[in-house]
Amino acid sequence: MNPPRTDARRHHDPEVRGFASDNYAGAHPEVLAALALANGGHQVAYGEDDYTENLQQIIRSHFGATAEAFPVFNGTGANVVALQAVTDRWGAVICAESAHINVDEGGAPERMGGLKLLTVPTPDGKLTPGLIDKQAYGWDDEHRAMPQVVSITQSTELGTLYTPDEIRAICGHAHAHGMKVHLDGSRIANAAASLDVPMRTFTNAVGVDILSLGGTKNGALFGEAVVVINQDAVSHMKHLRKLSMQLASKMRFVSVQLEALLAKDLWLRNARHANEMAQRLAEGVRAVHGVEILHPVQANGVFARLPHDVSERLQKRFRFYFWDEAAGVVRWMCAFDTTEEDVDAFLAALKEEMAR
Amino acid sequence: MNPPRTDARRHHDPEVRGFASDNYAGAHPEVLAALALANGGHQVAYGEDDYTENLQQIIRSHFGATAEAFPVFNGTGANVVALQAVTDRWGAVICAESAHINVDEGGAPERMGGLKLLTVPTPDGKLTPGLIDKQAYGWDDEHRAMPQVVSITQSTELGTLYTPDEIRAICGHAHAHGMKVHLDGSRIANAAASLDVPMRTFTNAVGVDILSLGGTKNGALFGEAVVVINQDAVSHMKHLRKLSMQLASKMRFVSVQLEALLAKDLWLRNARHANEMAQRLAEGVRAVHGVEILHPVQANGVFARLPHDVSERLQKRFRFYFWDEAAGVVRWMCAFDTTEEDVDAFLAALKEEMAR
Amino acid sequence: MNPPRTDARRHHDPEVRGFASDNYAGAHPEVLAALALANGGHQVAYGEDDYTENLQQIIRSHFGATAEAFPVFNGTGANVVALQAVTDRWGAVICAESAHINVDEGGAPERMGGLKLLTVPTPDGKLTPGLIDKQAYGWDDEHRAMPQVVSITQSTELGTLYTPDEIRAICGHAHAHGMKVHLDGSRIANAAASLDVPMRTFTNAVGVDILSLGGTKNGALFGEAVVVINQDAVSHMKHLRKLSMQLASKMRFVSVQLEALLAKDLWLRNARHANEMAQRLAEGVRAVHGVEILHPVQANGVFARLPHDVSERLQKRFRFYFWDEAAGVVRWMCAFDTTEEDVDAFLAALKEEMAR
Amino acid sequence: MNPPRTDARRHHDPEVRGFASDNYAGAHPEVLAALALANGGHQVAYGEDDYTENLQQIIRSHFGATAEAFPVFNGTGANVVALQAVTDRWGAVICAESAHINVDEGGAPERMGGLKLLTVPTPDGKLTPGLIDKQAYGWDDEHRAMPQVVSITQSTELGTLYTPDEIRAICGHAHAHGMKVHLDGSRIANAAASLDVPMRTFTNAVGVDILSLGGTKNGALFGEAVVVINQDAVSHMKHLRKLSMQLASKMRFVSVQLEALLAKDLWLRNARHANEMAQRLAEGVRAVHGVEILHPVQANGVFARLPHDVSERLQKRFRFYFWDEAAGVVRWMCAFDTTEEDVDAFLAALKEEMAR
Repeated sequence: MNPPRTDARRHHDPEVRGFASDNYAGAHPEVLAALALANGGHQVAYGEDDYTENLQQIIRSHFGATAEAFPVFNGTGANVVALQAVTDRWGAVICAESAHINVDEGGAPERMGGLKLLTVPTPDGKLTPGLIDKQAYGWDDEHRAMPQVVSITQSTELGTLYTPDEIRAICGHAHAHGMKVHLDGSRIANAAASLDVPMRTFTNAVGVDILSLGGTKNGALFGEAVVVINQDAVSHMKHLRKLSMQLASKMRFVSVQLEALLAKDLWLRNARHANEMAQRLAEGVRAVHGVEILHPVQANGVFARLPHDVSERLQKRFRFYFWDEAAGVVRWMCAFDTTEEDVDAFLAALKEEMAR
Repeated sequence: MNPPRTDARRHHDPEVRGFASDNYAGAHPEVLAALALANGGHQVAYGEDDYTENLQQIIRSHFGATAEAFPVFNGTGANVVALQAVTDRWGAVICAESAHINVDEGGAPERMGGLKLLTVPTPDGKLTPGLIDKQAYGWDDEHRAMPQVVSITQSTELGTLYTPDEIRAICGHAHAHGMKVHLDGSRIANAAASLDVPMRTFTNAVGVDILSLGGTKNGALFGEAVVVINQDAVSHMKHLRKLSMQLASKMRFVSVQLEALLAKDLWLRNARHANEMAQRLAEGVRAVHGVEILHPVQANGVFARLPHDVSERLQKRFRFYFWDEAAGVVRWMCAFDTTEEDVDAFLAALKEEMAR
Repeated sequence: MNPPRTDARRHHDPEVRGFASDNYAGAHPEVLAALALANGGHQVAYGEDDYTENLQQIIRSHFGATAEAFPVFNGTGANVVALQAVTDRWGAVICAESAHINVDEGGAPERMGGLKLLTVPTPDGKLTPGLIDKQAYGWDDEHRAMPQVVSITQSTELGTLYTPDEIRAICGHAHAHGMKVHLDGSRIANAAASLDVPMRTFTNAVGVDILSLGGTKNGALFGEAVVVINQDAVSHMKHLRKLSMQLASKMRFVSVQLEALLAKDLWLRNARHANEMAQRLAEGVRAVHGVEILHPVQANGVFARLPHDVSERLQKRFRFYFWDEAAGVVRWMCAFDTTEEDVDAFLAALKEEMAR
Repeated sequence: MNPPRTDARRHHDPEVRGFASDNYAGAHPEVLAALALANGGHQVAYGEDDYTENLQQIIRSHFGATAEAFPVFNGTGANVVALQAVTDRWGAVICAESAHINVDEGGAPERMGGLKLLTVPTPDGKLTPGLIDKQAYGWDDEHRAMPQVVSITQSTELGTLYTPDEIRAICGHAHAHGMKVHLDGSRIANAAASLDVPMRTFTNAVGVDILSLGGTKNGALFGEAVVVINQDAVSHMKHLRKLSMQLASKMRFVSVQLEALLAKDLWLRNARHANEMAQRLAEGVRAVHGVEILHPVQANGVFARLPHDVSERLQKRFRFYFWDEAAGVVRWMCAFDTTEEDVDAFLAALKEEMAR
């Protein structure tokens, strides 16, 4: 068939892939196809469309009867809306020092949300009740921004995972202190795939109050959702989303992408594949003398330490980032579209460069 | 051919259209087609992709050699990023009382941008140097938020237009007082189509410093851009966009939509059509006794006053909004996909209901 | 007696007084004497001192059993703390266009509080239920910052007064719409003195939820208090005051000033005297042909229209401000320390300059 | 003589002093006397008075010809105004984890200033170029709030001191990276007294750009000042102070207190005395077996570790705070009014309680 007419042109090579980030990937073709389905005709703007309404029952199937989704544009938006929703003007957020909200959102939580982050160093990106306690105090002390929510990331920024029991313990601890729990689920699908459990098993089943549900890294063009599980913990989410500049006018196009991912198992297929490619990569790397893998490879990322010059030469062949350049640590991410051939070619290149 | 597989389903009737808003429409098929072109392979995230790079020259072709586009998600985001870019912490924005930033953005300029809006009542949504002077004073007075930017909307929220000379006068006046000029161009294409001039004629040619370029209402799924014309007026736009939660990771999918619209003439075809439908509608309405058209119909919106009960009955047949319910004023918007048949059917219904 | 030793020197002429503002005046000697009483020894900082504790019962004697005072530094601080206390993150404030929070606080409500002000033009600085209705709508509309509080000023910025019944009507109207009522009482003492009623008569007795109680213009060196009347309307006031940078460490020195004013009748003596001087001034002005008094003179300010050149010559002899220079309108304020001789000398000068 | 009349009463015992905080003390009598000098007559409000004008030359005598003082109400206000002054909307602040701005200001920098704090753990409350480098990177990375200012505290929150050379090294390092340096001088007088150098020696002489000058802990009733040294680093300080709710109307009463302290040597006498009392206390404590002093005692604070039950019994006799209750660490502060007898009585009590 002839491609539909458009004045746009292709500017890139669709066969080139690297290991820089799961958001270097494009969209899954089934997601693109869903957009066409939702197109045509008029639908009420700003979220009162049929796709957003239908999304709610899909969300409930994943996160339980109380769950409600508020589609937003991106992860930073999801996190800042969600965290504002469970804090007062005087509230603060306890999170790992390595949390995306702390190190990768340009100060949006502070500048847009007015939120103070109370950070805790962690060995592996994971909080524990004990680590939380390093910041969980002083609720009556007006000189201290009040800890009102614990924010955890699943899977973490270091490619590690919380078990459901670990999250249960965190939620129990937080709730006992009157705090809520937010889960940054930018890569929640990878976590569920790796744990081989439904997403609910480590969210509503164990006490998470609100979460940021990632679509972009899972195969959408863009689009995430704030998912409220504990309705008592929030109010006026729609107002909060709007004033936070995260309200899409043609929301059907966000919602239908999430539907394409979540209605059946595309979310899981995509995540499982990315995880498997990370396992294949990690196994290959472990066989390369002189390269050290740094954290348990539990999702779709591999962190490794190798000689700096090797990394630099390798970066000329495959795109990826230093994680801690001074320490010689790099991050290799796999995506839903990473192929076995990509991994094998990368491993071959790694071996070559290590051997030079 | 068979449609591509997706787990999403169609939930709406693609043949139903109304007159509620140009963002009730979906995306233009050529825009959807462009997404497929940009898909596949890995592209650097967060704006260093080939599509965003290519977009810059398209933008320069429209807005001159100094112009630079910063794609964002939505209009509120574009406006709040743009206005922050041209104000200091102590700055304020002069705008019409009817401006979208004042009445339709949920307080985002104030809450997210910390911006005070200094509003002026206008008869037709348009500022003039004289009207601006009602708020343009007190720059040395620390008790007053400092007027640093004049924000105008083209076409306005009332469906009216500024001539290029009117904008030139506003820019000259603003600049003479050390203020910048922002143009909210959510419907800039409709303005250019109606004035039958290039967009540059009423932006960079007459002194506009920065603008919000609308894509969504022009036929995109979502996506706008802050376009900086006066580079001396801003700095660190990328940081500002990021901390304002408006940085798309897979930005190629925003940029390619703007490319599809702006590379050739889709933007103009879409806008021209919507405007023509509004003219057809206005002409038809003028023939209906008892219905009064309120503002010059210069873009794609028609504002009318008619008996309240007629409006209510009509709303059961076609979706549209009251603009000022107490005054019996309604707004009818045409979109790129409004058909002549839609307009004629609506007019017929209007006549029927007026006759009851 | 010899004055106590200090390295500071007197730099000004303590016999010069004008009509520019009631905060051009210094402090009442009885207030200064109170500071000495509170000095010496150690007192718990940040408000747990004996003076702040004692202040509470004084406040309750004025504002009823539920009232609680939170001393702050200045009027802008009092207003921004109070308004934040009765709004959510998505809340907005309905106020008169002429309100101090709108025109004289440098954008602090927007920039520090994130608050949108929904303003209404008024003839005399006073809101009414009807005027409030111009902005009181759209609570379910996320595109609109939600009106959650009505803020009125008593006495107003134009020297006018609300009767208790007028405030009762406003409170009833606001409460019926789920809104709270804030009273900016920067000059509340002048209002009570003029109405010849206790302050409670037009605050807690008629439904005001929270107020800013002015001390500075009433004879303090500095110092105001947020007074919460409706405890159900607020929470965590101490946290809000602290994060708003309005928590005094040595709070005893704020509280004892308010005690000096409010324990007996100094507040009333000061206000009554200032009001009487304004009446004397107004009466004298009315006898001057060519000078028009603009608003009812109900508190301690007189607004007048007179030839521009006369105002300019007069300003060389007595300090005062133009209120609306283009319109030839000036403001003359009387303070607790304005003397009859001051007024008479000013009137003589006015007559002289009018006669030139 | 008879005390001046006032309706306020004495509510506290002026002979009771403790070791809780230097802001538990009242005001120095010479400061109180200065207020009386500045009283009477009318002075222009909001900082155009003779006392504030005169203060400028006093400030220049201490901090050099470029220095300019902006009096504010309190330390949090001084810090938040100063830090906003040297940051853009996308800026961040590097500071010690123990900095007052991070742990004791209720989130005001984040909530009011929109500032992200990039914190570094330190052994003694002091930053170094090496420690700064843990956060000084990523200026081009929009995902990171941009480090634009290093904030140090002198003397530190742990009672330690920077030498002038240490601050010179920090300033050189910061400036080389395009960052400014802010000094939180809430206890700057104690630092100068201890180092036995003028304040300029460790501020303008070594590159500090802006500082918060403390008055309250040095013997004022209230009152601090933002002192700008590097005028190129800031603009529109008056607007920033106003919108930050830190503009005093009757500013003469802030300025004259700073004059009383700084015109001659009251600031130094007060600080020196407090430091000497801390030395006396530390010497005495060192003689008590079982009590460990934790940091070098370089200013007016002593940090010690002792058995928890001893601390609790001692707190019933003298007011002081736990610094880290879990670790058994307490803080004992001396003030300008702490007497040798106070110290000796406290030491006797400490010995008694240790012996029980």
